[in-house]
Amino acid sequence: MSITAADVLAAAERIRGRVKRTPVVKADVCGLELYLKCENLQDGGSFKLRGATNFVQTLDADALAKGVMAFSSGNHAAGVALAAQRAGTKARIVMPHDAPKVKVDNTASFGAEIISYNRHTEDREAICRAIASETGATIIPPFDHMLTITGQGTAAMELLEEVPDLDALIAPLGGGGLMSGCCLITRHMSPKTRLFGGEPELGNDTWLSFQAGERVEIPPSDTIADGLRSPAPGKLTFPIMKEHLEAVALVSEDEIRAAVRWLATKVHLVVEPSGAVPVAAVIHGKLPKECRRIGIIVTGGNMEPAQLAGILA
Amino acid sequence: MSITAADVLAAAERIRGRVKRTPVVKADVCGLELYLKCENLQDGGSFKLRGATNFVQTLDADALAKGVMAFSSGNHAAGVALAAQRAGTKARIVMPHDAPKVKVDNTASFGAEIISYNRHTEDREAICRAIASETGATIIPPFDHMLTITGQGTAAMELLEEVPDLDALIAPLGGGGLMSGCCLITRHMSPKTRLFGGEPELGNDTWLSFQAGERVEIPPSDTIADGLRSPAPGKLTFPIMKEHLEAVALVSEDEIRAAVRWLATKVHLVVEPSGAVPVAAVIHGKLPKECRRIGIIVTGGNMEPAQLAGILA
Repeated sequence: MSITAADVLAAAERIRGRVKRTPVVKADVCGLELYLKCENLQDGGSFKLRGATNFVQTLDADALAKGVMAFSSGNHAAGVALAAQRAGTKARIVMPHDAPKVKVDNTASFGAEIISYNRHTEDREAICRAIASETGATIIPPFDHMLTITGQGTAAMELLEEVPDLDALIAPLGGGGLMSGCCLITRHMSPKTRLFGGEPELGNDTWLSFQAGERVEIPPSDTIADGLRSPAPGKLTFPIMKEHLEAVALVSEDEIRAAVRWLATKVHLVVEPSGAVPVAAVIHGKLPKECRRIGIIVTGGNMEPAQLAGILA
Repeated sequence: MSITAADVLAAAERIRGRVKRTPVVKADVCGLELYLKCENLQDGGSFKLRGATNFVQTLDADALAKGVMAFSSGNHAAGVALAAQRAGTKARIVMPHDAPKVKVDNTASFGAEIISYNRHTEDREAICRAIASETGATIIPPFDHMLTITGQGTAAMELLEEVPDLDALIAPLGGGGLMSGCCLITRHMSPKTRLFGGEPELGNDTWLSFQAGERVEIPPSDTIADGLRSPAPGKLTFPIMKEHLEAVALVSEDEIRAAVRWLATKVHLVVEPSGAVPVAAVIHGKLPKECRRIGIIVTGGNMEPAQLAGILA
């Protein structure tokens, strides 16, 4: 099955009115025009609501009655919880016992049942499968699914509707769900816009995969960009990115912190480290010099207050 | 001379394309719908660009050749500097020697000449007058002028264009330039929307003036909301506010800090204490219970990184 831009357009219809149309904020820096698609201002605090809503809205009444579930310590958890709440169905979220409190609280605030597990001694996929087989709940995958990919791609679609003539578009690289959806719709709406991904040096699985020409898995990463710690790009997402992405820009931890600080103090947006990765790539000059008008998916804003304080102090 | 909503509409025409149309961000809290007009995302970091641009755009070629000036330690300085830069004229800004570095740097970054004075031993108005008489530069008043008032009112105009049926609208109370402009245009566009001002307990000059029925001056305030330390409402702004404002809501310093923290951690916006004052009033229940859909002018985001870190930690 091939995934196309038409599927992103269909996703946009499906989620219309159920997901916030986030603002695009222009910022000028280093002689560049940045157009920030502010998914940190999305309901639930990140773009993850898009893919989750797109998925939940395809479920029939029987499936909705049995609920949905996900395993995630981060923004996907909150996205699924909120999408389920809005569809009137139950969400069960499997989260590690040491997940950041702000993300557990955020997820619970949308009415989800939190199932805690010890990530050192228990297998979350086994837990998830056991619950799914017992309850009949539908598992919503975090990135490697057509509905997730195309739902996330609507962020780039909205950005291009507002700023059609971008020289380049860049998004963060976790499992590649967002990036591959953005690739598909950008090629359709603005074929001349060059496509880049931003990735932490400490979590460079997609960069390595591009070097190797095939999916490479890396050991667990502890980059500050906790949303981008996926060990490898997805089976569905990697071929799409390989076809359309011009390059993967790597950034250091210090460059990520500098971007979080710049966004907070100069643009006045709170952006979590994962969401600041592509901004870090741009302000540290890692895109070709001809790219002057640059669209950036700023993916989320959920972070511990103490972490933000530490970066600002 | 009477100032009317038609003057605000004229100001909107005058500044069109020279000032950012800032996004309105919806946030749900305590069963209320808040519509945040994000002037913290305005160029220069605050709504002050509106009034300054409205003023500068009325100057003829001769006046523009002589430049403009202002005395301010805060957002008005940056607003005048940026408005002047965009009009191709020179700005001279008189700032106290101990003004926050972030605000001095921000103002200087727009090409303004900074004239430093010792606020303990020198009279800034005398300095300003001396420079104005020597150079012929036009002084742009921070709040008590028709062009300032009507320029600032365009923020409420844009908010009401996007959300026409607000139960209430609230803005911070400094000298009253923003609030009085918002009053005029709101009464015209949405007569049923109730109007409130937010003010720090430690800088309650407008609240006291409402109690007395006339302008009251208070001693210098050291509220954390440094943009709202004006000693008294203006001669032009007070009668407008007295006619249209239903009440002044007072907030404590702790309530202001809690609002800054809530905006950063839950909404993902960096808002300086002055801009968070009306948010503090709303989330601490100081508006009548019937007000459910509330528009808030979030005035600016310029603050020292260390101050934000301290509030978050």
